[in-house]
Amino acid sequence: MTTSQHCFDDTERATIYRAIALRRDMRHFTPSPPLPDDQLERLLQAAHAAPSVGLMQPWRFMRLSTPPWRERLIGIVEAERQRTADALGARGAEFLRLKVEGLRDCAELLGVVLAPDDGTVFGRLSQPREMAWCSAACAVQNLWLAARAENLGLGWVSMFDPAQLACALALPEGAEPLGLLCLGPVPRFYDQPMLEETGWRHARPLSEMLMAPPAP
Amino acid sequence: MTTSQHCFDDTERATIYRAIALRRDMRHFTPSPPLPDDQLERLLQAAHAAPSVGLMQPWRFMRLSTPPWRERLIGIVEAERQRTADALGARGAEFLRLKVEGLRDCAELLGVVLAPDDGTVFGRLSQPREMAWCSAACAVQNLWLAARAENLGLGWVSMFDPAQLACALALPEGAEPLGLLCLGPVPRFYDQPMLEETGWRHARPLSEMLMAPPAP
Repeated sequence: MTTSQHCFDDTERATIYRAIALRRDMRHFTPSPPLPDDQLERLLQAAHAAPSVGLMQPWRFMRLSTPPWRERLIGIVEAERQRTADALGARGAEFLRLKVEGLRDCAELLGVVLAPDDGTVFGRLSQPREMAWCSAACAVQNLWLAARAENLGLGWVSMFDPAQLACALALPEGAEPLGLLCLGPVPRFYDQPMLEETGWRHARPLSEMLMAPPAP
Repeated sequence: MTTSQHCFDDTERATIYRAIALRRDMRHFTPSPPLPDDQLERLLQAAHAAPSVGLMQPWRFMRLSTPPWRERLIGIVEAERQRTADALGARGAEFLRLKVEGLRDCAELLGVVLAPDDGTVFGRLSQPREMAWCSAACAVQNLWLAARAENLGLGWVSMFDPAQLACALALPEGAEPLGLLCLGPVPRFYDQPMLEETGWRHARPLSEMLMAPPAP
């Protein structure tokens, strides 16, 4: 590989920042045929290029795009949506008016699964579960940005009972469902996160994310 | 914003995939002055553009680049490195020969902290801790790719006792340390993950990450 391939110039840097800025958690999809196999493989290879603690690569992917799978998963998500509304109390009715998933219309529906713990110690002696989850989340974020680069939307649905979903997916002992990913063409990308556009919640500025360290 | 700004063309798409493919977890850094403030802010804004469950934005950042902080943190990481070697048993000596962090030489040293739980229910009724960690990890992955776009290396150090680090950083009740991020110029980016280059472990192909679903 040449030096120029290793270096990113100003134009390329701006492109990467643009993908990061324009990526959205999507719930509105354009009904579409399944993605071409080569495109789906590019996207999954991007996910698989993620870092992982101790190189454990704990992410697993399951393609669940058939109509019977969608119906089954919609049922699981809908039950959790109702439980969420109950838990939200005063804002439950407002919550139920929000669109929280695109399972029916997305071109592809993927399950992301955390593999059973493989016993990796490197870098996860003290926080083994947390580091496995973080590694898998990095893979999803790669997939999200790759999808944006393909002008495709992705929505991470985490609204499900994990035990129920693990059972439905017949996951092996120790594996855990991380998310259902809705993936495919969208009518438009939200200008702001959908929860902001709908007035559900406001994002905070970076300045509020910075903590001053104490004296060392 | 115009349509062309919303769409990525083939060249731009290839650039984004290239950043994903060339990003590495770095441990070797070129001793350098602190990053310019505007560059560090661009990088943190990229992290802050990450998705988060229920828009909870649980990530917090602490700049710990001063020499006294480095010395203190090196001590904390070194203690965990020794404990890790003990836990690795037969491979402990081999492990101790690996370079596992770049805390001394990196231009900037950042602490990433998970904020105390803010009670967000949306999307995290059943897996509240996991979803907070995943959201914060997505922010780190954005930062990683933005750093790569800036031709800077980043290494996520997770080798520490979280209680000891939380105490050193004087974190508020309920906050948890996620990682120490080494950030800055590097002599070269590894061609393969360093744990592969050193023969510690081999990465597996994407084909082994795909799970066939059961009958729906």
